[in-house]
Formats: sequence, structure tokens, C-alpha cells
Amino acid sequence: MKTLAVNLGVRSYPIHIGEGLLRKPELITDHIRGRQVLVVTNETIAPLYLDTIRGVLNGFDLASVILPDGEQYKNIDTLNSVFTSLLEHRFNRRCTLVALGGGVVGDITGFAAACYQRGVAFLQLPTTLLAQVDSSVGGKTGVNHPLGKNMIGAFHQPGCVVIDTDTLDTLDQRQLAAGFAEVIKYGLIHDARFFTWIEQNIEQLKARDKLSLAYAIEKSCTIKAEIVAADERESGQRALLNLGHTFGHAIETGTGYGNWLHGEAVAAGMLMAADLSARHQWLPRSDVARIENLLQCAGLPTSPPAGMDEARFMELMAIDKKVLDGGLRLVLLKAIGTAVVTGDFSSALLSQTLTRAA
Amino acid sequence: MKTLAVNLGVRSYPIHIGEGLLRKPELITDHIRGRQVLVVTNETIAPLYLDTIRGVLNGFDLASVILPDGEQYKNIDTLNSVFTSLLEHRFNRRCTLVALGGGVVGDITGFAAACYQRGVAFLQLPTTLLAQVDSSVGGKTGVNHPLGKNMIGAFHQPGCVVIDTDTLDTLDQRQLAAGFAEVIKYGLIHDARFFTWIEQNIEQLKARDKLSLAYAIEKSCTIKAEIVAADERESGQRALLNLGHTFGHAIETGTGYGNWLHGEAVAAGMLMAADLSARHQWLPRSDVARIENLLQCAGLPTSPPAGMDEARFMELMAIDKKVLDGGLRLVLLKAIGTAVVTGDFSSALLSQTLTRAA
Repeated sequence: MKTLAVNLGVRSYPIHIGEGLLRKPELITDHIRGRQVLVVTNETIAPLYLDTIRGVLNGFDLASVILPDGEQYKNIDTLNSVFTSLLEHRFNRRCTLVALGGGVVGDITGFAAACYQRGVAFLQLPTTLLAQVDSSVGGKTGVNHPLGKNMIGAFHQPGCVVIDTDTLDTLDQRQLAAGFAEVIKYGLIHDARFFTWIEQNIEQLKARDKLSLAYAIEKSCTIKAEIVAADERESGQRALLNLGHTFGHAIETGTGYGNWLHGEAVAAGMLMAADLSARHQWLPRSDVARIENLLQCAGLPTSPPAGMDEARFMELMAIDKKVLDGGLRLVLLKAIGTAVVTGDFSSALLSQTLTRAA
Repeated sequence: MKTLAVNLGVRSYPIHIGEGLLRKPELITDHIRGRQVLVVTNETIAPLYLDTIRGVLNGFDLASVILPDGEQYKNIDTLNSVFTSLLEHRFNRRCTLVALGGGVVGDITGFAAACYQRGVAFLQLPTTLLAQVDSSVGGKTGVNHPLGKNMIGAFHQPGCVVIDTDTLDTLDQRQLAAGFAEVIKYGLIHDARFFTWIEQNIEQLKARDKLSLAYAIEKSCTIKAEIVAADERESGQRALLNLGHTFGHAIETGTGYGNWLHGEAVAAGMLMAADLSARHQWLPRSDVARIENLLQCAGLPTSPPAGMDEARFMELMAIDKKVLDGGLRLVLLKAIGTAVVTGDFSSALLSQTLTRAA
């Protein structure tokens, strides 16, 4: 088992990564304060792992809620069903929520914990690669609104993140690929050598080679933990983690939540960001080709859906959280391994990227 | 104009109290960062003051949303309508929400600001006495759930509180009396001399004497600001502000939100707390009589509704936020002016208080 730390003063917490960790009670129970525990999971994960967790938490005043599976359910109604469950079980301010599932389960559970009685504890037990390398770490929680992705939420850090890499055995290939998008993102924004390593190991990763996956997860979490520790509330460099996300969120909202997986939309969005960077001659075309090739090898889309034209992108991106006082800011690449957040790009070139995309 | 400060480090803010303050643009505009402002008000307040505020905020990118009036609308659906308005106007992370109204408007607006894009700024312009002396100060925001009052929310401090005492001219007598309940609360928990002052001035207060009301507001805000500054997140003495609220919340939930005003339920709850304190011989019966007399003079109820029996109270109180790990804790009185938060009371005597109440 490897253990990393997210250093945030009194809100610091460990990330444990290894095989079979969901069967190690102390990793989880050490971070539960009171007696009451609500496990939040979904209909796909519950048959696979809920009994295991119930066994581990034997002795607590335990309840569980099983949400429907999919981004289309990451909304305020599903959130409210978690509150209802907490209240039906008369859970008090010292209860702990446990998120057992992928990014949707983690985001909803964390936000429910942020709001229930104005804030209770929660833990992350991510079971998808995307949640393990990205969404379970850093305390961004929330739900979607029909008019915009992740528009309602809170910063609320978990008490710990326990990544059992065995859970990837039950993940379908499409979900696994979606996770690779965020892994590739870390290489692009922060670490050219890691990007090269992914290029060299993408076949082993797709074949679920345990050592390769464990290294990819550890490396991703290390980069994410470092960035979050330096800028918890995203007043600066944390925004780099949004590479491809402004385009990607527009795709997710524009196609209807749940049709494209988050990682798929981010993949197409990252290539759009690379294309726009190349149009500014910040990035050689050969690097765009490398990125496109890696995304394709990973089994990810490299262009947005046909129906998304320039006008639709602009309409949806206008509402993005990274839009400050009317100016659109994007994460673009100066090189593989080096990203910038900037509003200083040509709208004519952006138009070309969006037109080519359609 | 009087100005008080809520001292919370980087989250410190002023409370301005005086006549005609809603017509002084700089008090409000000094605390708006970006260009986008959403005024949240309700159908009662909008015809009275919305045009005034729109004039004051002339020059900003201004929008408004008018909520239905009443505690029964302080729920997640109304909250969502604020998010929809923000998104329809494409408001970004640097927008500011302005709460123009009573406690319900302030609580919903503050919670919407806490969650929109994971947190934006907001200001409080309270127009009811209850909001002016209590709910607009201290950063407790949230909405009700059908199973429990204020169960979903956040701590989110406003950028300023502007109390225009002229708005009390348009407040109906029942709402004014509800505000007196919280004013009396400050005397009971913190300041015996202030309690005596209220006893001596209750007729002037009811007659809306300007000087008396201004003093009552200033004194109440001073006490609240001091307690909040010492314990923002209610890990200790802030819980004293909940005198009467555990019983009161049970009354509000049990009778259906909106039938009893919050201040009315708190009044009945405070007398129950006084009665229970007297049963423990912590408080002389003569003090209970003084409290009852003052509440009656103020035009407030002194007993809960007939339908609320002991079993119903216990069921509803079991879910209260102040219940920690199974033990019910109550705010009780050691004297007029001195309160304690305690789980060390006799359940037999509590039963007597609840039975007498029914």
C-alpha cells in the first residue's frame, strides 16, 4: 500500500492506494468520528461492494442509500434523496457519509455532507479510475443544473480517500478509458515525462496490468494533491486541472448529461485546447498529433459530437465557471507538460478550432 | 447611523443600522465586487422596496428574482429557482447576490450564494425585525426539509448587513412581535439589564417608537456579533443562541412550516425552556412568570399548539441538530441573563414540561 498526503492544514487527509484496501477496516474506521454512518452508492456498485463495506463497518449505526447510476442523476433531486435518507435515519451532526462509487457518487455524497446540518464528515472510496485519479481528491463536490455542469456545489474535503485498485477489475472498458483521459491530463499540464510514460504504457494500462495502473494512479494523485495543497479554492494554478474541461463541460451539457462520459468529453476538449494552442503557435503540430494519437490509443474520442457547432459551444461556454466578468479564460498548452490559464487568445483562432470541431 | 463589526478575520463585515439606509448607495455598492448583481426578494417586499434597490444599483448588470412569501417556501425547490435565475442570466463566479427581505429570503439567498459555482458573494438587506436582530447576522444559511427545519445549509458570511429601520414601518404587527421574541432571547441568554429594559419599553417597541426600536436592534446585533465572532461554527457558546429553538423547531415542523412564525415558535419554546429550568430549581418560578408576562405583552404565544403532545415533541426533537450522538442537549436558564447548553437534565422533568405544554 502507498499512502500520499493532501496537505491542507487542519483539513489534511491521506490517500491510500493498493490492492484489497476495501477489506481493511482500520483504513476506513480510523476516519469515522461518531457512530452513525451512511454509505452512499449506486445500483451498479451496490451488488459488487456494498456487502463488503457493510462488513467492514459492522458495529456502527449503519445505513445505506443506493442512487441510480449515471451523470444524468447528478442533480438536486438525487441530492435531496440523500438528505431524506439521513433524516429518516435521524442522523445527527456527528454522522459520517461514505461515498462508494465513481465520480457522480463522490460528488453528490461530498456535497450532501457539506450541506447536511451545515456540514458533516465524509470519506471517499472511489471505484472508477476517473474517481481514483481525479474527482475523489481535492474536495470539489456538487451537482449539475440543467443549464450548466457542476454549477451548484461546495469545497468540502473528505476525511480520507481509500483507493482499492481491485475495484478496477469490475470496471467496464469504456469507464476505464474515461479515466485515462484525466491521467493523460496530468501529463499534459504538469509532467512531460509522465506523458511519455503513458504513451509507452498505454497497452499495459488498457490490459489492466496491476503495476502500471497503480503507478498511473499514484502519479496522478501525487500531482493532484500537490496542486490542491497549493491552491485549495482555485484562485490560481488549480485552474490548470481544468484543461479540456471548458470545452468538455459544453459537450456534456450540450449532448445531455450521461450520453458522453465526463472523461470522454474531457478527451475531446483537451484535443481542442491543443489545437487552439497550435493555432497560436504555442505548441508544434507534431505535439497535437502525439496527443491525438495517445487519446485514440486509449480508446477515447478526439472530436466533439457532430451536432455541436460553434454557436452552441459559445452559448454553453459563456456560462462556464472559468468565465470571469465577461472574459472567457481557457487552459491552453505552451508545451506537453506546461499549461497556462489565459484569456489572451485570439477569438478568430478559437472560432477556427470550434468550426473544425463541428 | 450606527455601525457594528462582526470580527471574523478575513470574513469580517460591518452591520449598518439607521433610518433610510436603503437609499444610500455606497453602503451597498462598496461591498459588490463584480458587475453582476441578483436581487432576491419576495412578493410582499418587491412592491415596497425593489424599485428603490434597483435605483441604488443602477449601473450594475442587474437582475432580480421574486420568491413566494412564507416559511413553507424555504425549501430546495425555491433554492433551485434562484440557481436557475443565476444561470439564465449567465452570472459568473464574481457575481453578488443581494437578499432583500426577511429571514426566509436571507437564508435562501445566503445558501444559494454559498453553493452557486461553489461560492459567491452576498449582502443582507433585512426588512423584518427578526431578520434585522438575528438571522441576517452570523452566516447561518439554509433551507428546510419536510423532515426537519434548517437541516440543509451552510455557514456563509455576508459582505455586509444594511439595516434600514424605516422598513419596519411596513411590517405587520404579527411579524413585528415575532422579532421581539429574538430580542427577548438576547436578554435571557446574555444580559439581564437588557431584559429589564425590554420589560420597561415593550409598549414603546410595540408602538414602533423609532429610538426604542433602534436601541433594541443595536443591542441585539451587538450581542449576536460578539457570540458569532467567538464561535463562528457553533462548536461552543454560539449554541446559546438556540434558546427555545429546539422546542420551537419542533413546533414549526410539527404544525407545518408557515403556520407558526419562527419567532412565535421560539417564544413558546423559550417559555418551555424556562419552565424546565424552574423544574430543576435553576430558575425561580417568579422569573418564569416575568418571562411569560413579557412574551404576552409582546403579543407572542406562550404555549405550543394543542395538537403537539409529548410523543410528537420527542419524535421531532430527536432529529434536531443539537442532538449529538443520541443525547438531547438543550439550552436552559440558570438565571435571567445566564444560559447553559446541557444534556444534564432530568428526562422525567422534561416529560412534565412537554406534558404541561400539550
